[in-house]
Amino acid sequence: MREPRPNALNSELSDIAADVFARVRARAPRVHCLTNAVAQTFTANVLLAVGAIPSMTIAPEEIVSFVARADSFLVNLGTFDHERHKATALAIEHVIRKGTPWVLDPVFIDRSQPRTVLAQTLFEQAPTTVRLNSAEFAALTGAEPRRKVLLRQATDHHAVIALTGATDLITDGTRIVEIANGDPLMAKVTAMGDALSALVAACLAVEVDAWVATASAVLGFGVAGEIAAETARGPGSFAVGLIDVLHGLDRAQLLAKGRAT
Amino acid sequence: MREPRPNALNSELSDIAADVFARVRARAPRVHCLTNAVAQTFTANVLLAVGAIPSMTIAPEEIVSFVARADSFLVNLGTFDHERHKATALAIEHVIRKGTPWVLDPVFIDRSQPRTVLAQTLFEQAPTTVRLNSAEFAALTGAEPRRKVLLRQATDHHAVIALTGATDLITDGTRIVEIANGDPLMAKVTAMGDALSALVAACLAVEVDAWVATASAVLGFGVAGEIAAETARGPGSFAVGLIDVLHGLDRAQLLAKGRAT
Amino acid sequence: MREPRPNALNSELSDIAADVFARVRARAPRVHCLTNAVAQTFTANVLLAVGAIPSMTIAPEEIVSFVARADSFLVNLGTFDHERHKATALAIEHVIRKGTPWVLDPVFIDRSQPRTVLAQTLFEQAPTTVRLNSAEFAALTGAEPRRKVLLRQATDHHAVIALTGATDLITDGTRIVEIANGDPLMAKVTAMGDALSALVAACLAVEVDAWVATASAVLGFGVAGEIAAETARGPGSFAVGLIDVLHGLDRAQLLAKGRAT
Repeated sequence: MREPRPNALNSELSDIAADVFARVRARAPRVHCLTNAVAQTFTANVLLAVGAIPSMTIAPEEIVSFVARADSFLVNLGTFDHERHKATALAIEHVIRKGTPWVLDPVFIDRSQPRTVLAQTLFEQAPTTVRLNSAEFAALTGAEPRRKVLLRQATDHHAVIALTGATDLITDGTRIVEIANGDPLMAKVTAMGDALSALVAACLAVEVDAWVATASAVLGFGVAGEIAAETARGPGSFAVGLIDVLHGLDRAQLLAKGRAT
Repeated sequence: MREPRPNALNSELSDIAADVFARVRARAPRVHCLTNAVAQTFTANVLLAVGAIPSMTIAPEEIVSFVARADSFLVNLGTFDHERHKATALAIEHVIRKGTPWVLDPVFIDRSQPRTVLAQTLFEQAPTTVRLNSAEFAALTGAEPRRKVLLRQATDHHAVIALTGATDLITDGTRIVEIANGDPLMAKVTAMGDALSALVAACLAVEVDAWVATASAVLGFGVAGEIAAETARGPGSFAVGLIDVLHGLDRAQLLAKGRAT
Repeated sequence: MREPRPNALNSELSDIAADVFARVRARAPRVHCLTNAVAQTFTANVLLAVGAIPSMTIAPEEIVSFVARADSFLVNLGTFDHERHKATALAIEHVIRKGTPWVLDPVFIDRSQPRTVLAQTLFEQAPTTVRLNSAEFAALTGAEPRRKVLLRQATDHHAVIALTGATDLITDGTRIVEIANGDPLMAKVTAMGDALSALVAACLAVEVDAWVATASAVLGFGVAGEIAAETARGPGSFAVGLIDVLHGLDRAQLLAKGRAT
């Protein structure tokens, strides 16, 4: 699977994603999340549901202690305050030196210039994966998110890029996969993207091929979203149901629902 | 409707509220919320459920960037720390200069003297709407919340006052409406009042008559609460159900349940 | 019940816990929580569900105003930042002087040295109850959590110790009870331990025997967890259901399900 055929990915990626999710459950990786206040609780619950162990401290005094014990790391730029700035710099310096996989989620950087600048600086430090939407990609790179641009940005930054939206594109500069799972209710619950980024970090902790890990997380999250939407009565019960589904997500569901091309 | 007859409001206000909610869904206004940590997630989910786009950053460095792109603004004084103080001053200065509608929610000011002083200062700056309960009103104005006092305070401060409790009173100093919707379970879930204040901000973004916008939000929230309570098994499922109901709230429900006099 | 027979506690403690929960509902004690960002919302909702009144501000400028009006106090060391450090010192000084019961929850102190040191300092100040897991106990005391060690630590620190895990042990140095309630799903939802610590604080506000209050909270929470697990479809609906069950928890449920020895 290290060199998948781009157009025969469907059942193949579902199968691999099932393996990756099983490994997360078996190994219970520690994922440290430096994330925004709005997303912290939901993110922690998504990680716990899939079997990972979240920690969330943002204090500069202890961030390195936590990151040093973590198997992967997420930095999310939502509600970005002074303390998180300091903690981010310390944490990134540590994960780069140690080779810990890390995910950059440049939330809302299209809305704030200081946030854009910070995101660009972090992008230069070769995150394992960057997870963002089209507006954030445009703000980060100054370019529209066409396939060719995605491939080049991934290559130039030695990073997997996961562009999420109505459909998702995941590339490492060589391989690219399009995933058509998910449900419109996902856009009606806060912190969905943030939680997906944390799930990517959990998968990176158990799968060395970052492109495979990232695609597995995106596929699994989208499939879980579709299943949760089937019985949801609105975004409230959808969010609750998504946690339930992620907790029990299995190979049969991934094979039946996965839509990767 | 700009000069409604106080005692013939029932179906009239329900009808108008349905229009206001439809406009929120159609226009997806951006609502920036400077709110307390406890309320952020629920508030964001309430806004998303009705079709608005929440943002929640509290960082002084970027608050103005976010507020400048927002269609309305909420400042809530719960869990009020130093950073939020600075961000509030910057944001208020901006919204006043730009004429952006804004809501003041003076949470728990009856418990803390510095908070009371801050709330009084903000009240002097003519918020579009102030949403509070009786104890907060007494702390803010030094007076009991009788109708005559409410009318005068609203007139003096050029603000709509929404006093919420077992029944709610909304006045702009000239017009006053009493709304008798809601359910006791609303007092058993944290951040209900905070989320209502954010919903007021969302309605202010699409309705220039601030009294109409505020009354619509209060009525819609109360009706949604009653409907959610019908199937709730306790405050946990009630909070989830309220989000579901708000997402689908329609004219028929508002007309059937609205109790405005 | 002030001198219960250790091996005849089962129905006795269930009965007492029912009294304590009834008193919380009747008296609506104010519980101030200085807790981590991840836990704030769930903790507030647990307290509201049982009939207590939570407040959560962390601002050093106003913490004393809030604590002075509170009937009990919780300090939780998760996501511990600079502002919370300052607020903690001010709050503890106040509660000790006033004799307000307080709970220490040394979250994740096994992961961070500065946090361990702070927890040890707080432990020296004789909290009414310390609620922690085995890893946290080992970090706090440097010893494995055997019964004899628990008893001695409780005696030495004039504190009730509630060690929670697959089974729970609660001791004040003289009396000890083992509680075998709960469900594995409790470990799959963030802030469960934090919320339990807040529930201990609520019970301490209405019951002067700290060991009885603490055991009641632990028993009630565990019983509620078991009942919620019966109908949960995963950790999402479990967390929602737990709030529902706590809201209605009654003597019959406690007597039927309680397992204290």
